[in-house]
Amino acid sequence: MSDERPYYAFHVFCCTNERPEGHARGSCARKGAERLRNYMKARAKELGISGTRINAAGCLDRCELGATLVVYPEGVWYTYANEADLDEILVAHLQGGRIVERLRLTVEQTALRPDQMAVAG
Amino acid sequence: MSDERPYYAFHVFCCTNERPEGHARGSCARKGAERLRNYMKARAKELGISGTRINAAGCLDRCELGATLVVYPEGVWYTYANEADLDEILVAHLQGGRIVERLRLTVEQTALRPDQMAVAG
Repeated sequence: MSDERPYYAFHVFCCTNERPEGHARGSCARKGAERLRNYMKARAKELGISGTRINAAGCLDRCELGATLVVYPEGVWYTYANEADLDEILVAHLQGGRIVERLRLTVEQTALRPDQMAVAG
Repeated sequence: MSDERPYYAFHVFCCTNERPEGHARGSCARKGAERLRNYMKARAKELGISGTRINAAGCLDRCELGATLVVYPEGVWYTYANEADLDEILVAHLQGGRIVERLRLTVEQTALRPDQMAVAG
């Protein structure tokens, strides 16, 4: 719909939502998302990746699959657990333009809530 | 790069970053962004707009042009000041697929900082 080049070549949103300890859905903050987002931001700068912004975001609603981030404008979603995962996303995807398939979340991977899981058997 | 349909048809990120009162760059939170994001989220639900998420985000770094939001995957940026602006974005863009040109931020509208403004004259 837009005929303009993107303002950011890669606009990354890292969910940093926090839920109380023991919440059934969990939350990205409980999986280190705040610290890891700060790492990704600093590492992107070190690598000289330009035209890119690594933003914090509220709940992206795929909590059970987290920690999650999404790269726009492509709309590629990732799950990640540690610095090594983020390094791979930075180097392969943001520098190399190749999706990291082992960390990618597909559209079909819905964030099932426990009540939905029970229905799904 | 991605051959998948988007997880959200429209993924809206509203900057809700807050800076201290009197900061030279201002901030979206000082322009009512938190309240207005909550309004947009509730209004989208009332209008029955599905497949859409209205997220809060950290600083999108176009502070002087704010309050700002961006609609992905198109990457269309808007400035907005009140509920009427958000109503127009919801109805025209998210329901009707038409960009609201009067509120749109172009790529050329950079967020000039005061030191840059001085250089620019």
